[in-house]
Amino acid sequence: MSVKAFVFDLDGVVYRGKQPLPGAVQAIETLRQSGYQVYFFTNNSSKTREEYVEKLGGMGLRCDINHIMTSSYATALYLTENGAKSKKVYVVGMKGIRDELTRVGMQIVEDDNFAEADFVVVGIDKNFTYDKLTKAQQAILAGAEFIATNRDATFPMENGRILPGGGTIVAAIEVAVGRAPILIGKPSTYAMQKLVTVASADPSQVAIAGDRLDTDILVANRIGALSILVLTGIATREDAELAPPEMRPRLIVESISELPGLFAKES
Amino acid sequence: MSVKAFVFDLDGVVYRGKQPLPGAVQAIETLRQSGYQVYFFTNNSSKTREEYVEKLGGMGLRCDINHIMTSSYATALYLTENGAKSKKVYVVGMKGIRDELTRVGMQIVEDDNFAEADFVVVGIDKNFTYDKLTKAQQAILAGAEFIATNRDATFPMENGRILPGGGTIVAAIEVAVGRAPILIGKPSTYAMQKLVTVASADPSQVAIAGDRLDTDILVANRIGALSILVLTGIATREDAELAPPEMRPRLIVESISELPGLFAKES
Repeated sequence: MSVKAFVFDLDGVVYRGKQPLPGAVQAIETLRQSGYQVYFFTNNSSKTREEYVEKLGGMGLRCDINHIMTSSYATALYLTENGAKSKKVYVVGMKGIRDELTRVGMQIVEDDNFAEADFVVVGIDKNFTYDKLTKAQQAILAGAEFIATNRDATFPMENGRILPGGGTIVAAIEVAVGRAPILIGKPSTYAMQKLVTVASADPSQVAIAGDRLDTDILVANRIGALSILVLTGIATREDAELAPPEMRPRLIVESISELPGLFAKES
Repeated sequence: MSVKAFVFDLDGVVYRGKQPLPGAVQAIETLRQSGYQVYFFTNNSSKTREEYVEKLGGMGLRCDINHIMTSSYATALYLTENGAKSKKVYVVGMKGIRDELTRVGMQIVEDDNFAEADFVVVGIDKNFTYDKLTKAQQAILAGAEFIATNRDATFPMENGRILPGGGTIVAAIEVAVGRAPILIGKPSTYAMQKLVTVASADPSQVAIAGDRLDTDILVANRIGALSILVLTGIATREDAELAPPEMRPRLIVESISELPGLFAKES
Protein backbone atom coordinates (compact mmCIF):
# COMPACT_ATOMS: atom_id res chain seq x y z
CA MET A 1 0.00 0.00 0.00
CA SER A 2 1.34 3.42 -0.82
CA VAL A 3 2.11 6.17 1.67
CA LYS A 4 -0.65 8.71 2.38
CA ALA A 5 0.80 10.57 5.36
CA PHE A 6 4.15 11.57 6.81
CA VAL A 7 4.83 12.07 10.52
CA PHE A 8 7.95 14.13 11.14
CA ASP A 9 9.86 14.42 14.38
CA LEU A 10 11.04 18.02 14.96
CA ASP A 11 14.35 18.34 16.88
CA GLY A 12 17.14 17.11 14.62
CA VAL A 13 14.73 16.50 11.73
CA VAL A 14 13.11 19.82 10.82
CA TYR A 15 15.45 22.06 12.85
CA ARG A 16 18.24 22.10 15.42
CA GLY A 17 17.55 24.67 18.14
CA LYS A 18 16.33 27.79 16.34
CA GLN A 19 17.88 26.89 13.01
CA PRO A 20 15.85 25.08 10.33
CA LEU A 21 17.79 22.27 8.67
CA PRO A 22 18.78 22.97 5.04
CA GLY A 23 15.99 22.13 2.63
CA ALA A 24 13.63 20.85 5.32
CA VAL A 25 10.89 23.44 4.93
CA GLN A 26 10.92 23.21 1.13
CA ALA A 27 10.82 19.41 1.25
CA ILE A 28 7.74 19.43 3.47
CA GLU A 29 5.97 21.94 1.23
CA THR A 30 6.77 19.81 -1.82
CA LEU A 31 5.38 16.69 -0.16
CA ARG A 32 2.19 18.58 0.70
CA GLN A 33 1.86 19.81 -2.88
CA SER A 34 2.24 16.22 -4.00
CA GLY A 35 -0.85 15.35 -1.98
CA TYR A 36 0.66 13.86 1.16
CA GLN A 37 -0.73 14.67 4.58
CA VAL A 38 1.98 15.98 6.92
CA TYR A 39 1.97 15.67 10.73
CA PHE A 40 4.58 16.56 13.34
CA PHE A 41 5.19 14.59 16.53
CA THR A 42 7.80 15.73 19.03
CA ASN A 43 8.64 14.08 22.32
CA ASN A 44 9.93 17.45 23.49
CA SER A 45 7.52 18.55 26.21
CA SER A 46 8.80 22.08 26.71
CA LYS A 47 6.38 23.95 24.43
CA THR A 48 2.62 23.91 23.79
CA ARG A 49 1.25 22.93 20.38
CA GLU A 50 0.46 26.63 19.72
CA GLU A 51 4.11 27.49 20.34
CA TYR A 52 5.16 24.86 17.80
CA VAL A 53 2.72 26.34 15.26
CA GLU A 54 4.44 29.68 15.87
CA LYS A 55 7.97 28.28 15.79
CA LEU A 56 7.35 26.47 12.51
CA GLY A 57 5.55 29.50 11.08
CA GLY A 58 8.59 31.64 11.90
CA MET A 59 10.60 29.26 9.72
CA GLY A 60 8.13 29.69 6.87
CA LEU A 61 6.30 26.42 7.52
CA ARG A 62 2.54 26.80 7.82
CA CYS A 63 1.01 24.27 10.13
CA ASP A 64 -2.41 23.64 11.62
CA ILE A 65 -2.50 22.84 15.36
CA ASN A 66 -4.38 19.61 14.67
CA HIS A 67 -1.40 18.35 12.72
CA ILE A 68 0.90 18.65 15.73
CA MET A 69 1.35 16.05 18.46
CA THR A 70 3.60 16.59 21.46
CA SER A 71 4.35 14.32 24.41
CA SER A 72 2.72 16.94 26.66
CA TYR A 73 -0.51 17.02 24.68
CA ALA A 74 -0.46 13.21 24.49
CA THR A 75 -0.13 13.09 28.28
CA ALA A 76 -3.11 15.42 28.66
CA LEU A 77 -5.13 13.17 26.32
CA TYR A 78 -4.08 10.04 28.21
CA LEU A 79 -4.92 11.50 31.61
CA THR A 80 -8.30 12.77 30.39
CA GLU A 81 -9.15 9.33 29.07
CA ASN A 82 -8.14 7.80 32.39
CA GLY A 83 -10.37 9.91 34.62
CA ALA A 84 -7.73 12.36 35.78
CA LYS A 85 -9.71 15.48 34.84
CA SER A 86 -9.87 17.86 37.83
CA LYS A 87 -7.33 15.75 39.74
CA LYS A 88 -4.13 17.25 41.16
CA VAL A 89 -0.78 17.05 39.42
CA TYR A 90 2.77 17.99 40.42
CA VAL A 91 4.77 18.89 37.32
CA VAL A 92 8.52 18.53 36.85
CA GLY A 93 8.59 20.24 33.48
CA MET A 94 8.05 23.44 31.58
CA LYS A 95 5.24 25.49 30.04
CA GLY A 96 4.27 22.83 27.49
CA ILE A 97 3.24 20.33 30.14
CA ARG A 98 1.69 22.84 32.51
CA ASP A 99 -0.48 24.49 29.86
CA GLU A 100 -1.70 21.25 28.27
CA LEU A 101 -2.65 19.76 31.65
CA THR A 102 -4.36 22.94 32.84
CA ARG A 103 -6.34 23.11 29.62
CA VAL A 104 -7.90 19.67 30.19
CA GLY A 105 -8.99 20.71 33.68
CA MET A 106 -6.22 19.33 35.87
CA GLN A 107 -5.16 21.30 38.89
CA ILE A 108 -1.44 21.96 39.13
CA VAL A 109 -0.15 21.84 42.70
CA GLU A 110 2.78 24.14 43.33
CA ASP A 111 5.80 23.60 45.50
CA ASP A 112 4.05 24.02 48.85
CA ASN A 113 1.28 21.51 48.11
CA PHE A 114 3.18 18.82 46.22
CA ALA A 115 2.16 16.23 48.81
CA GLU A 116 -1.48 16.46 47.64
CA ALA A 117 -0.64 15.37 44.08
CA ASP A 118 -2.53 12.45 42.50
CA PHE A 119 -0.07 12.45 39.58
CA VAL A 120 3.53 13.47 39.03
CA VAL A 121 4.17 14.31 35.37
CA VAL A 122 7.80 14.57 34.26
CA GLY A 123 9.46 16.01 31.17
CA ILE A 124 12.36 18.23 30.24
CA ASP A 125 12.83 20.97 32.83
CA LYS A 126 15.61 23.48 32.35
CA ASN A 127 14.91 24.68 35.88
CA PHE A 128 15.24 21.17 37.34
CA THR A 129 16.72 21.13 40.85
CA TYR A 130 17.40 18.69 43.68
CA ASP A 131 14.46 20.28 45.48
CA LYS A 132 12.06 19.34 42.65
CA LEU A 133 13.56 15.85 42.57
CA THR A 134 12.83 15.50 46.28
CA LYS A 135 9.24 16.74 45.93
CA ALA A 136 8.55 14.40 43.03
CA GLN A 137 10.00 11.52 45.09
CA GLN A 138 7.93 12.33 48.20
CA ALA A 139 4.70 12.67 46.18
CA ILE A 140 5.22 9.36 44.34
CA LEU A 141 6.22 7.50 47.52
CA ALA A 142 3.02 8.90 49.08
CA GLY A 143 0.99 7.30 46.27
CA ALA A 144 0.93 9.68 43.30
CA GLU A 145 1.05 8.03 39.85
CA PHE A 146 4.43 8.53 38.12
CA ILE A 147 4.02 9.60 34.46
CA ALA A 148 6.86 10.32 32.02
CA THR A 149 6.07 12.42 28.94
CA ASN A 150 9.19 10.94 27.31
CA ARG A 151 12.51 9.24 28.02
CA ASP A 152 14.64 10.93 25.35
CA ALA A 153 18.23 10.92 26.63
CA THR A 154 19.27 13.98 24.63
CA PHE A 155 18.14 16.45 22.01
CA PRO A 156 20.18 18.05 19.27
CA MET A 157 20.94 21.80 19.17
CA GLU A 158 22.64 24.16 16.71
CA ASN A 159 26.36 23.67 15.98
CA GLY A 160 26.33 19.94 16.60
CA ARG A 161 25.75 20.35 20.33
CA ILE A 162 23.37 18.07 22.21
CA LEU A 163 21.59 18.79 25.50
CA PRO A 164 20.23 16.46 28.22
CA GLY A 165 16.67 15.36 27.39
CA GLY A 166 13.64 14.60 29.53
CA GLY A 167 14.89 11.03 30.01
CA THR A 168 17.70 12.23 32.27
CA ILE A 169 15.20 13.74 34.71
CA VAL A 170 12.94 10.70 34.51
CA ALA A 171 15.96 8.50 35.34
CA ALA A 172 16.83 10.53 38.45
CA ILE A 173 13.27 10.28 39.80
CA GLU A 174 13.02 6.60 38.85
CA VAL A 175 16.11 5.82 40.95
CA ALA A 176 14.78 7.93 43.84
CA VAL A 177 11.45 6.04 43.97
CA GLY A 178 12.66 2.59 42.88
CA ARG A 179 10.11 2.09 40.12
CA ALA A 180 9.47 2.89 36.48
CA PRO A 181 6.97 5.47 35.21
CA ILE A 182 4.08 5.07 32.79
CA LEU A 183 5.58 6.32 29.52
CA ILE A 184 3.35 8.35 27.18
CA GLY A 185 5.54 9.74 24.35
CA LYS A 186 7.33 7.73 21.65
CA PRO A 187 8.09 4.77 21.59
CA SER A 188 4.75 4.26 23.36
CA THR A 189 2.28 3.73 20.53
CA TYR A 190 -0.58 5.53 22.29
CA ALA A 191 -0.36 8.96 20.67
CA MET A 192 1.04 7.77 17.33
CA GLN A 193 -2.06 5.59 16.88
CA LYS A 194 -4.19 8.69 17.39
CA LEU A 195 -2.39 10.48 14.54
CA VAL A 196 -2.89 7.47 12.29
CA THR A 197 -6.60 7.61 13.07
CA VAL A 198 -6.77 11.36 12.38
CA ALA A 199 -5.07 10.71 9.03
CA SER A 200 -7.77 8.11 8.17
CA ALA A 201 -4.93 5.82 7.22
CA ASP A 202 -3.79 2.30 7.80
CA PRO A 203 -0.44 2.27 9.68
CA SER A 204 1.17 0.79 6.56
CA GLN A 205 0.18 4.00 4.73
CA VAL A 206 2.12 6.18 7.18
CA ALA A 207 5.83 7.07 6.98
CA ILE A 208 7.48 8.18 10.22
CA ALA A 209 10.73 10.12 9.88
CA GLY A 210 12.90 10.74 12.90
CA ASP A 211 16.46 10.94 14.22
CA ARG A 212 16.25 8.57 17.21
CA LEU A 213 16.22 4.78 16.94
CA ASP A 214 14.78 4.21 20.41
CA THR A 215 11.78 6.49 19.91
CA ASP A 216 10.93 7.39 16.27
CA ILE A 217 12.11 4.21 14.56
CA LEU A 218 10.90 1.90 17.32
CA VAL A 219 7.38 3.35 17.41
CA ALA A 220 7.15 3.25 13.60
CA ASN A 221 8.16 -0.42 13.55
CA ARG A 222 5.82 -1.23 16.43
CA ILE A 223 2.72 0.07 14.65
CA GLY A 224 3.78 -1.23 11.23
CA ALA A 225 4.50 2.17 9.66
CA LEU A 226 7.39 2.85 7.27
CA SER A 227 10.35 3.85 9.46
CA ILE A 228 12.75 6.44 8.04
CA LEU A 229 15.93 7.47 9.84
CA VAL A 230 17.28 10.94 9.04
CA LEU A 231 20.95 11.57 9.81
CA THR A 232 20.64 15.25 10.76
CA GLY A 233 20.04 14.54 14.47
CA ILE A 234 21.19 12.01 17.06
CA ALA A 235 21.60 8.56 15.43
CA THR A 236 24.26 7.72 12.85
CA ARG A 237 24.23 5.19 10.02
CA GLU A 238 26.48 2.99 12.15
CA ASP A 239 24.07 3.20 15.10
CA ALA A 240 21.31 2.00 12.76
CA GLU A 241 23.39 -0.94 11.54
CA LEU A 242 24.23 -2.03 15.08
CA ALA A 243 20.68 -1.61 16.41
CA PRO A 244 18.48 -4.54 17.43
CA PRO A 245 15.95 -5.53 14.73
CA GLU A 246 13.00 -3.63 16.22
CA MET A 247 14.99 -0.37 16.09
CA ARG A 248 16.31 -0.77 12.55
CA PRO A 249 14.91 1.76 10.05
CA ARG A 250 13.45 0.62 6.72
CA LEU A 251 14.97 3.66 4.99
CA ILE A 252 17.93 5.88 5.86
CA VAL A 253 18.22 9.37 4.34
CA GLU A 254 20.81 12.08 4.94
CA SER A 255 18.03 14.62 5.50
CA ILE A 256 14.33 15.04 4.80
CA SER A 257 15.23 17.09 1.72
CA GLU A 258 15.73 13.73 -0.03
CA LEU A 259 12.15 12.62 0.56
CA PRO A 260 10.34 14.43 -2.30
CA GLY A 261 12.70 12.68 -4.72
CA LEU A 262 12.00 9.29 -3.16
CA PHE A 263 8.24 9.66 -2.85
CA ALA A 264 6.97 10.61 -6.29
CA LYS A 265 3.67 12.38 -6.80
CA GLU A 266 0.83 9.91 -6.45
CA SER A 267 -2.02 11.54 -8.36
CA MET B 1 38.07 -16.86 62.84
CA SER B 2 36.65 -14.36 65.27
CA VAL B 3 35.79 -10.74 64.54
CA LYS B 4 38.48 -8.13 65.28
CA ALA B 5 36.94 -5.05 63.69
CA PHE B 6 33.54 -3.54 62.91
CA VAL B 7 32.83 -1.23 59.99
CA PHE B 8 29.63 0.77 60.49
CA ASP B 9 27.70 2.63 57.84
CA LEU B 10 26.40 5.98 59.19
CA ASP B 11 23.06 7.14 57.66
CA GLY B 12 20.34 4.82 58.95
CA VAL B 13 22.77 2.87 61.13
CA VAL B 14 24.29 5.32 63.64
CA TYR B 15 21.88 8.21 63.02
CA ARG B 16 19.06 9.48 60.82
CA GLY B 17 19.64 13.12 59.83
CA LYS B 18 20.78 14.89 63.00
CA GLN B 19 19.27 12.35 65.35
CA PRO B 20 21.39 9.48 66.75
CA LEU B 21 19.55 6.15 66.71
CA PRO B 22 18.55 4.84 70.16
CA GLY B 23 21.39 2.97 71.83
CA ALA B 24 23.78 3.34 68.88
CA VAL B 25 26.44 5.44 70.59
CA GLN B 26 26.44 3.30 73.71
CA ALA B 27 26.66 0.10 71.65
CA ILE B 28 29.72 1.35 69.79
CA GLU B 29 31.43 2.40 73.04
CA THR B 30 30.73 -1.02 74.54
CA LEU B 31 32.20 -2.80 71.52
CA ARG B 32 35.33 -0.64 71.79
CA GLN B 33 35.63 -1.40 75.48
CA SER B 34 35.38 -5.07 74.61
CA GLY B 35 38.48 -4.68 72.45
CA TYR B 36 37.00 -4.40 68.96
CA GLN B 37 38.35 -1.88 66.47
CA VAL B 38 35.57 0.35 65.12
CA TYR B 39 35.56 2.06 61.71
CA PHE B 40 32.91 4.08 59.89
CA PHE B 41 32.35 4.03 56.13
CA THR B 42 29.68 6.22 54.56
CA ASN B 43 28.86 6.49 50.87
CA ASN B 44 27.46 9.94 51.60
CA SER B 45 29.82 12.35 49.86
CA SER B 46 28.40 15.59 51.24
CA LYS B 47 30.80 16.08 54.16
CA THR B 48 34.56 15.84 54.75
CA ARG B 49 35.98 13.30 57.18
CA GLU B 50 36.65 16.15 59.65
CA GLU B 51 32.99 17.08 59.52
CA TYR B 52 32.03 13.50 60.33
CA VAL B 53 34.44 13.53 63.31
CA GLU B 54 32.60 16.65 64.49
CA LYS B 55 29.12 15.31 63.80
CA LEU B 56 29.83 12.06 65.67
CA GLY B 57 31.55 14.00 68.48
CA GLY B 58 28.43 16.14 68.84
CA MET B 59 26.50 12.92 69.48
CA GLY B 60 28.98 11.89 72.18
CA LEU B 61 30.90 9.48 69.95
CA ARG B 62 34.66 10.09 69.93
CA CYS B 63 36.25 9.15 66.64
CA ASP B 64 39.68 9.49 65.08
CA ILE B 65 39.78 10.75 61.48
CA ASN B 66 41.76 7.67 60.42
CA HIS B 67 38.84 5.49 61.40
CA ILE B 68 36.50 7.22 58.96
CA MET B 69 36.12 6.39 55.27
CA THR B 70 33.84 8.33 52.96
CA SER B 71 33.14 7.89 49.26
CA SER B 72 34.66 11.35 48.68
CA TYR B 73 37.89 10.48 50.45
CA ALA B 74 37.97 7.13 48.65
CA THR B 75 37.62 8.98 45.34
CA ALA B 76 40.52 11.26 46.24
CA LEU B 77 42.65 8.18 47.09
CA TYR B 78 41.68 6.46 43.86
CA LEU B 79 42.45 9.49 41.70
CA THR B 80 45.77 10.05 43.44
CA GLU B 81 46.76 6.44 42.81
CA ASN B 82 45.76 6.81 39.16
CA GLY B 83 47.89 9.82 38.35
CA ALA B 84 45.17 12.45 38.59
CA LYS B 85 47.06 14.68 41.03
CA SER B 86 47.14 18.28 39.69
CA LYS B 87 44.64 17.37 36.95
CA LYS B 88 41.39 19.31 36.47
CA VAL B 89 38.06 18.12 37.83
CA TYR B 90 34.46 19.35 37.43
CA VAL B 91 32.46 18.45 40.53
CA VAL B 92 28.74 17.79 40.72
CA GLY B 93 28.64 17.51 44.48
CA MET B 94 29.09 19.28 47.78
CA LYS B 95 31.84 20.33 50.17
CA GLY B 96 32.92 16.77 50.98
CA ILE B 97 34.01 16.03 47.45
CA ARG B 98 35.45 19.46 46.72
CA ASP B 99 37.59 19.55 49.85
CA GLU B 100 38.92 16.00 49.56
CA LEU B 101 39.90 16.50 45.91
CA THR B 102 41.49 19.88 46.54
CA ARG B 103 43.49 18.43 49.40
CA VAL B 104 45.17 15.83 47.16
CA GLY B 105 46.19 18.55 44.71
CA MET B 106 43.44 18.41 42.11
CA GLN B 107 42.30 21.63 40.52
CA ILE B 108 38.55 22.20 40.61
CA VAL B 109 37.24 23.91 37.49
CA GLU B 110 34.25 26.10 38.10
CA ASP B 111 31.23 26.68 35.94
CA ASP B 112 32.94 28.82 33.30
CA ASN B 113 35.79 26.37 32.66
CA PHE B 114 33.98 23.04 32.89
CA ALA B 115 35.06 22.19 29.33
CA GLU B 116 38.71 21.88 30.48
CA ALA B 117 37.94 19.09 32.97
CA ASP B 118 39.92 15.83 32.82
CA PHE B 119 37.49 14.25 35.30
CA VAL B 120 33.86 14.74 36.28
CA VAL B 121 33.23 13.54 39.84
CA VAL B 122 29.61 13.10 40.90
CA GLY B 123 27.92 12.66 44.27
CA ILE B 124 24.96 13.99 46.19
CA ASP B 125 24.39 17.67 45.38
CA LYS B 126 21.53 19.48 47.05
CA ASN B 127 22.16 22.35 44.65
CA PHE B 128 21.93 20.10 41.60
CA THR B 129 20.42 21.84 38.56
CA TYR B 130 19.80 21.19 34.86
CA ASP B 131 22.68 23.56 34.18
CA LYS B 132 25.12 21.37 36.14
CA LEU B 133 23.74 18.29 34.39
CA THR B 134 24.45 19.95 31.04
CA LYS B 135 28.00 20.94 32.01
CA ALA B 136 28.78 17.43 33.30
CA GLN B 137 27.40 16.00 30.04
CA GLN B 138 29.42 18.35 27.81
CA ALA B 139 32.66 17.70 29.73
CA ILE B 140 32.24 13.91 29.60
CA LEU B 141 31.29 13.92 25.91
CA ALA B 142 34.42 16.03 25.31
CA GLY B 143 36.54 13.28 26.91
CA ALA B 144 36.55 13.77 30.69
CA GLU B 145 36.50 10.58 32.79
CA PHE B 146 33.12 10.01 34.51
CA ILE B 147 33.54 9.05 38.20
CA ALA B 148 30.70 8.32 40.65
CA THR B 149 31.43 8.55 44.36
CA ASN B 150 28.38 6.34 44.97
CA ARG B 151 25.11 5.16 43.45
CA ASP B 152 22.96 5.15 46.58
CA ALA B 153 19.36 5.71 45.46
CA THR B 154 18.24 7.24 48.74
CA PHE B 155 19.30 8.04 52.26
CA PRO B 156 17.23 7.93 55.42
CA MET B 157 16.35 11.05 57.43
CA GLU B 158 14.60 11.77 60.72
CA ASN B 159 10.90 10.87 61.07
CA GLY B 160 11.05 7.99 58.62
CA ARG B 161 11.59 10.28 55.63
CA ILE B 162 14.03 9.39 52.87
CA LEU B 163 15.76 11.75 50.45
CA PRO B 164 17.18 11.21 46.93
CA GLY B 165 20.77 9.94 47.10
CA GLY B 166 23.82 10.50 44.90
CA GLY B 167 22.68 7.65 42.66
CA THR B 168 19.81 9.75 41.32
CA ILE B 169 22.22 12.38 40.03
CA VAL B 170 24.59 9.74 38.65
CA ALA B 171 21.62 8.19 36.77
CA ALA B 172 20.66 11.51 35.15
CA ILE B 173 24.22 12.10 33.89
CA GLU B 174 24.59 8.47 32.81
CA VAL B 175 21.51 8.80 30.58
CA ALA B 176 22.75 12.14 29.20
CA VAL B 177 26.14 10.69 28.16
CA GLY B 178 25.06 7.15 27.31
CA ARG B 179 27.64 5.37 29.42
CA ALA B 180 28.27 4.18 32.96
CA PRO B 181 30.71 5.81 35.40
CA ILE B 182 33.62 4.30 37.29
CA LEU B 183 32.12 3.65 40.72
CA ILE B 184 34.31 4.24 43.80
CA GLY B 185 32.11 3.89 46.92
CA LYS B 186 30.40 0.73 48.19
CA PRO B 187 29.73 -1.85 46.70
CA SER B 188 33.08 -1.28 44.95
CA THR B 189 35.59 -3.12 47.15
CA TYR B 190 38.37 -0.58 46.57
CA ALA B 191 38.04 1.51 49.74
CA MET B 192 36.71 -1.27 51.95
CA GLN B 193 39.88 -3.27 51.26
CA LYS B 194 41.90 -0.27 52.43
CA LEU B 195 40.07 -0.27 55.79
CA VAL B 196 40.69 -4.00 56.18
CA THR B 197 44.40 -3.36 55.62
CA VAL B 198 44.44 -0.50 58.14
CA ALA B 199 42.79 -2.85 60.66
CA SER B 200 45.57 -5.44 60.08
CA ALA B 201 42.81 -7.96 59.69
CA ASP B 202 41.79 -10.72 57.35
CA PRO B 203 38.42 -9.88 55.70
CA SER B 204 36.87 -12.80 57.60
CA GLN B 205 37.76 -10.98 60.83
CA VAL B 206 35.75 -7.91 59.84
CA ALA B 207 32.02 -7.38 60.43
CA ILE B 208 30.31 -4.80 58.20
CA ALA B 209 27.01 -3.42 59.48
CA GLY B 210 24.79 -1.37 57.18
CA ASP B 211 21.23 -0.64 56.13
CA ARG B 212 21.48 -1.12 52.33
CA LEU B 213 21.62 -4.49 50.62
CA ASP B 214 23.06 -3.15 47.35
CA THR B 215 26.00 -1.37 49.01
CA ASP B 216 26.83 -2.45 52.57
CA ILE B 217 25.79 -6.09 52.39
CA LEU B 218 27.04 -6.61 48.85
CA VAL B 219 30.50 -5.20 49.56
CA ALA B 220 30.77 -7.27 52.77
CA ASN B 221 29.89 -10.47 50.92
CA ARG B 222 32.23 -9.59 48.06
CA ILE B 223 35.30 -9.30 50.28
CA GLY B 224 34.31 -12.21 52.52
CA ALA B 225 33.50 -10.15 55.62
CA LEU B 226 30.59 -10.87 57.98
CA SER B 227 27.59 -8.98 56.58
CA ILE B 228 25.12 -7.56 59.11
CA LEU B 229 21.88 -5.85 58.08
CA VAL B 230 20.43 -3.34 60.54
CA LEU B 231 16.73 -2.53 60.17
CA THR B 232 16.92 1.13 61.25
CA GLY B 233 17.50 2.45 57.72
CA ILE B 234 16.44 1.59 54.18
CA ALA B 235 16.16 -2.21 53.79
CA THR B 236 13.53 -4.34 55.54
CA ARG B 237 13.68 -7.97 56.66
CA GLU B 238 11.48 -8.83 53.67
CA ASP B 239 13.86 -7.04 51.27
CA ALA B 240 16.66 -9.21 52.68
CA GLU B 241 14.69 -12.42 52.20
CA LEU B 242 13.87 -11.53 48.58
CA ALA B 243 17.39 -10.38 47.72
CA PRO B 244 19.69 -12.29 45.34
CA PRO B 245 22.26 -14.46 47.18
CA GLU B 246 25.12 -11.96 46.90
CA MET B 247 23.04 -9.29 48.68
CA ARG B 248 21.75 -11.52 51.47
CA PRO B 249 23.09 -10.61 54.94
CA ARG B 250 24.60 -13.25 57.24
CA LEU B 251 22.99 -11.60 60.27
CA ILE B 252 19.97 -9.33 60.66
CA VAL B 253 19.57 -7.13 63.75
CA GLU B 254 16.90 -4.60 64.62
CA SER B 255 19.59 -2.05 65.47
CA ILE B 256 23.28 -1.95 66.32
CA SER B 257 22.34 -1.79 70.00
CA GLU B 258 21.95 -5.59 69.78
CA LEU B 259 25.55 -6.14 68.72
CA PRO B 260 27.33 -6.01 72.13
CA GLY B 261 25.05 -8.84 73.30
CA LEU B 262 25.84 -10.91 70.22
CA PHE B 263 29.59 -10.31 70.19
CA ALA B 264 30.84 -11.23 73.60
CA LYS B 265 34.07 -9.87 75.01
CA GLU B 266 37.00 -11.69 73.47
CA SER B 267 39.76 -11.13 75.99
